[in-house]
Amino acid sequence: DDNAYFDSYAHFGIHEVMLKDKIRTENYRDFIKNNPNLFKNKVVLDVGCGTAILSMFAARAGAKQVIAIDQSEIIYQAMDIVRENKLDDKITFVKGRLEDVEIPVEKVDVIISEWMGYFLLFESMLDTVLYARDKHLIEGGMVYPDLTTLSLVAVGDMATYADHVRYWDDVYGFKMSCMRTTLLEEASVDFILPGVVMSEPAMIKCIDVTSTNSKDLDFTTDFKLVMTRRDMCTALVGYFDVIFERNCTRTVMFSTGPKAPKTHWKQTIFHFKKPIELSEGEVLAGRISCRKDPKDCRALIVTFNIDRETLKYYVR
Amino acid sequence: DDNAYFDSYAHFGIHEVMLKDKIRTENYRDFIKNNPNLFKNKVVLDVGCGTAILSMFAARAGAKQVIAIDQSEIIYQAMDIVRENKLDDKITFVKGRLEDVEIPVEKVDVIISEWMGYFLLFESMLDTVLYARDKHLIEGGMVYPDLTTLSLVAVGDMATYADHVRYWDDVYGFKMSCMRTTLLEEASVDFILPGVVMSEPAMIKCIDVTSTNSKDLDFTTDFKLVMTRRDMCTALVGYFDVIFERNCTRTVMFSTGPKAPKTHWKQTIFHFKKPIELSEGEVLAGRISCRKDPKDCRALIVTFNIDRETLKYYVR
Repeated sequence: DDNAYFDSYAHFGIHEVMLKDKIRTENYRDFIKNNPNLFKNKVVLDVGCGTAILSMFAARAGAKQVIAIDQSEIIYQAMDIVRENKLDDKITFVKGRLEDVEIPVEKVDVIISEWMGYFLLFESMLDTVLYARDKHLIEGGMVYPDLTTLSLVAVGDMATYADHVRYWDDVYGFKMSCMRTTLLEEASVDFILPGVVMSEPAMIKCIDVTSTNSKDLDFTTDFKLVMTRRDMCTALVGYFDVIFERNCTRTVMFSTGPKAPKTHWKQTIFHFKKPIELSEGEVLAGRISCRKDPKDCRALIVTFNIDRETLKYYVR
Repeated sequence: DDNAYFDSYAHFGIHEVMLKDKIRTENYRDFIKNNPNLFKNKVVLDVGCGTAILSMFAARAGAKQVIAIDQSEIIYQAMDIVRENKLDDKITFVKGRLEDVEIPVEKVDVIISEWMGYFLLFESMLDTVLYARDKHLIEGGMVYPDLTTLSLVAVGDMATYADHVRYWDDVYGFKMSCMRTTLLEEASVDFILPGVVMSEPAMIKCIDVTSTNSKDLDFTTDFKLVMTRRDMCTALVGYFDVIFERNCTRTVMFSTGPKAPKTHWKQTIFHFKKPIELSEGEVLAGRISCRKDPKDCRALIVTFNIDRETLKYYVR
């Protein structure tokens, strides 16, 4: 029954949110529309097609055939949508896990997918795109988006710190320290006001979707954040950028960072238990490791090592 | 693993939201604090205790003993919280479904519970409170809140209608009628701007928690909404009020209606597929039926009969 629930409204509601995220959907649309040479007479695979909006953009751009695959019940809505728009001669649906099913062509020329999750890698759908690339893409075929980057900034935001961390010191006159400890282990997904950013961004991962491998998606890297002003640093914040570039007549990119227009991905916030005082020009150096949670393959475990302290968070 | 997820962050996050809902928590606090005569030296049962905030209010008001029961893992946090506040001699925890477990006393003097869900009855936790009342409450004992009411108003909100209903006519140049049909079956939980209300409220259900029975919670009733201005009616909106009154020195009440301060329950919106034009003073008469979804006992099926049309919605 839980599955029935997740396969009905929960999924349909999220598709409404994703369609209405104009930064996401319009950038995909613009990439496809402004680069018709990539799609004209091509066989295209849309991995995790949802409502089939990307498949329809590709069909409208002149694709010869689009294979649209999704394992969710949303695919039945997508079939209706494609029929309603008279594109059912161009778009073929496959319901199932890509790793488990056959698709009606042996090879495709182009793979498109909107696979990004919170902190880029939540939900691990990129693994499926890489599997599709290795199995179904012709030699020299293209995968879009072709490049994504993951970045960190430091933020100084004592108001949010008070609300999220100090709050538990006095909850209607009671102390709730254990709630603070438990909730601090969870990364928050929320919007950061641009004004609270107190460092330059530091890129911690660049994924070339054409060449990366699944095992590279668990990674550890050092980072250095250079402060742009003096403040109490209360959290690190992660976000990603998406780039459509290779072979494109017109490059398209968008950012989910705190200074860019809002998207449904918001930003991912790793709150500190104790703020760190930092001066302008000072460098906060550390190491970040990001890996799949072995207990929940959709979730991520993100660990920071800063100043001999280890801070562990779940993104889920 | 899904259960592990729901029993960890999902549940803990909702408890943060509920604690931070000041209308909810402060009204419970004020009721308990301002009516110490109801709690002094009494044995109190807190049904669905969560973080045990109500149990601690009761202990602080002089309760002799509080039994706090919850089936969620949150109860382990509650145990820590109560120890941290040195109330563990007053508050006794029981983990489990109330219907399945023994409690350490035979009878209690007072039952307190915050059992209300979206559209009052979503999640059906009132059934558990009624079970507790019938099994554990002494003759003449009290249950709080003792009164709740469920009401409807008509709203005229063409902007939301455009965003929610007409949106699907042209999604980046494509039609998605089936998404409209599917999403219209789902009641939305969201805030209504007070300005869009276009009728007097009509009460559709009054629940006296001291005397009602589980079977009364599935109900059908006629309603009449008197328009306060001429407009296109685009939706009906449901909300509830909560009253602590019986034997109280000071009555406490709060509303979750569109004209009251915001709560985490927001309002429940039943969008029309087609707006209905109505004049000032005109009456929109209909019948509403509300029952548990036999396929998902937490969910509700709400059916309206208006003008020979039947509109069916899920609250889930």
